[in-house]
Amino acid sequence: MRYYAQPLSQLIGQLSKLPGVGPKTAQRLAFHILGMDQKDAQDLAKSISEIKNKLSYCSICNNLTQNDPCQICSEHRRDKSLICVVEEVKDVIAMEKTGEYKGVYHVLHGAISPIDGVGPEDIKIKSLLPRLDENISEVILATDPNVEGEATAMYISKLLKPLGIKVTRIAHGLPVGGDLEYADEVTLSKALEGRREI
Amino acid sequence: MRYYAQPLSQLIGQLSKLPGVGPKTAQRLAFHILGMDQKDAQDLAKSISEIKNKLSYCSICNNLTQNDPCQICSEHRRDKSLICVVEEVKDVIAMEKTGEYKGVYHVLHGAISPIDGVGPEDIKIKSLLPRLDENISEVILATDPNVEGEATAMYISKLLKPLGIKVTRIAHGLPVGGDLEYADEVTLSKALEGRREI
Ligand SMILES: [Zn+2]
Ligand SMILES: [Zn+2]
Repeated sequence: MRYYAQPLSQLIGQLSKLPGVGPKTAQRLAFHILGMDQKDAQDLAKSISEIKNKLSYCSICNNLTQNDPCQICSEHRRDKSLICVVEEVKDVIAMEKTGEYKGVYHVLHGAISPIDGVGPEDIKIKSLLPRLDENISEVILATDPNVEGEATAMYISKLLKPLGIKVTRIAHGLPVGGDLEYADEVTLSKALEGRREI
Repeated sequence: MRYYAQPLSQLIGQLSKLPGVGPKTAQRLAFHILGMDQKDAQDLAKSISEIKNKLSYCSICNNLTQNDPCQICSEHRRDKSLICVVEEVKDVIAMEKTGEYKGVYHVLHGAISPIDGVGPEDIKIKSLLPRLDENISEVILATDPNVEGEATAMYISKLLKPLGIKVTRIAHGLPVGGDLEYADEVTLSKALEGRREI
């Protein structure tokens, strides 16, 4: 990229580090940004620079949020007796899009994966336990329908069984080996509807 | 995007306005940015916010540059008697990558296109004329090998002929209908080598 003026080659270099952005795409994006209204470019820069400071994790459910507790945990109409355990923040979004689920969440920020050296202590399982008081009617395990997701569901299920809490696993309406985040709303609704106790 | 915390949905919205970035890609990029080192995110934001102010156009050749005149116009070893006329800044980069060309450039910032209402006065043709003193040995027309590029080459050629200047057109080694910017180095080298007077 030595052919470009330094600020441009720098921006192209930074953009090509983003996932799925090759050198040609980075070049196209850089020229686009160069051609943007000064205000739009400033706004984009501001969002990028502030996003980390503006967001934190909900102290109850670990969801990404601007305020603590998060909007879902704060909402009075949500059924606090129902906790849906998901791997990632993106999965909360996917569940919310179904419009079917009225409970709250617990975001693990990962899944158990011995191959990758990720054990139960490396994800947010421990913080689930203090939430499980006598008001909890059900814990829905909505981890991904793949090896890691199943292992994680199994682990949590074994952990909660002695506590006498109803634990269900989201139904395999989802294509096995898939990613919950990419499931369409209907499939996800069906999977939720068909959940069974494990 | 109402499911996301506001700063996140805002960033996703801004990213999806970039060319070739759909909602899913914007979401992936936003989460990636959220997970970046604070310093890397700040650096990217800074580049985006400053790119427009840091760059301007060379007062001689209209190339994008940090300093005026641009690096190419300032370099003593470049053959100032040889001017290669291209449509866009990206085309300068493409030419430089061949490593074959030792002259200087003139960037038109567009091509004549009656259909799109772009006439000769809408691109930087006029500023080429003051550069054409007795020291100029040749003007190479390296506009794109498509309808607009040919029309532009023809127009400039007719304009310069009365001045007694040697005007050449880059050879059609390039696939006709293509975009000079996407030509590989070898094709572009060959096309340059096979240029003919018009
Ligand atoms: Zn929460
Ligand atoms: Zn220049």
